[in-house]
Amino acid sequence: MNVGTEWLVDAEGCSADRLCDLDAVRSLCEEVITALDLRVVGDALWHRFPEPGGVTGLYLLSESHLACHTFPETGIATFNLYCCRPRPPFAWDERLRSALDATRVTIRTAIRGSEAETDYALFETHLRELDATSEVSSR
Amino acid sequence: MNVGTEWLVDAEGCSADRLCDLDAVRSLCEEVITALDLRVVGDALWHRFPEPGGVTGLYLLSESHLACHTFPETGIATFNLYCCRPRPPFAWDERLRSALDATRVTIRTAIRGSEAETDYALFETHLRELDATSEVSSR
Repeated sequence: MNVGTEWLVDAEGCSADRLCDLDAVRSLCEEVITALDLRVVGDALWHRFPEPGGVTGLYLLSESHLACHTFPETGIATFNLYCCRPRPPFAWDERLRSALDATRVTIRTAIRGSEAETDYALFETHLRELDATSEVSSR
Repeated sequence: MNVGTEWLVDAEGCSADRLCDLDAVRSLCEEVITALDLRVVGDALWHRFPEPGGVTGLYLLSESHLACHTFPETGIATFNLYCCRPRPPFAWDERLRSALDATRVTIRTAIRGSEAETDYALFETHLRELDATSEVSSR
């Protein structure tokens, strides 16, 4: 039994300043929520850690959850979006490039539930090189 | 740059009553937190949905996050544990069998960060058939 799809999104090359800007990262998460018509239950949890000042946000959704962590020391932001009802894809690479200055975005999907053990084929990595000087690859 | 490891844990065949029991599921999550010496930031988010009464819990951790969703209608519970500092493995299959009556537990790991695009080999599924009448497989 499939109990949802999870997107694991990893963005590299991001602006450290953007990754420390809790309001900017929160705004991006709320854009995801609005774009996919997700329903937030209660108040989101947000925290800004001490220097180098990464942030974490967690949203409890009717559809499951959205989580975000930023690592300004490495220019990386990671997102988990777990939806137990079908949702269209979000334009992660376009929006993370624009909002966080990401140069590369990796999107993996995982089926949750009893199909997990056969999920090798379904666990696809979609890699887009956003740096035009690098080779564009996808798989 | 590796910014952590995530465990995606899917348990099947669970007792519907256990999956509706928020206190029991919370107790299990708190056992994970204690066993792995994780540090919770702020208050956890917990919610019990209307009938059939699944529950969701989210913990913001210094190490990243722990999320749990239960689906009593299908006997499934799913967990995400994302740790940006190395942690030993938790005894998921033993504990989920004991606490939730799970008959099968699938554990996948995903490396987060810029190694994500080469993570095919690292994204391993460890499947243990807890039903002794079934074939034991692992990969």
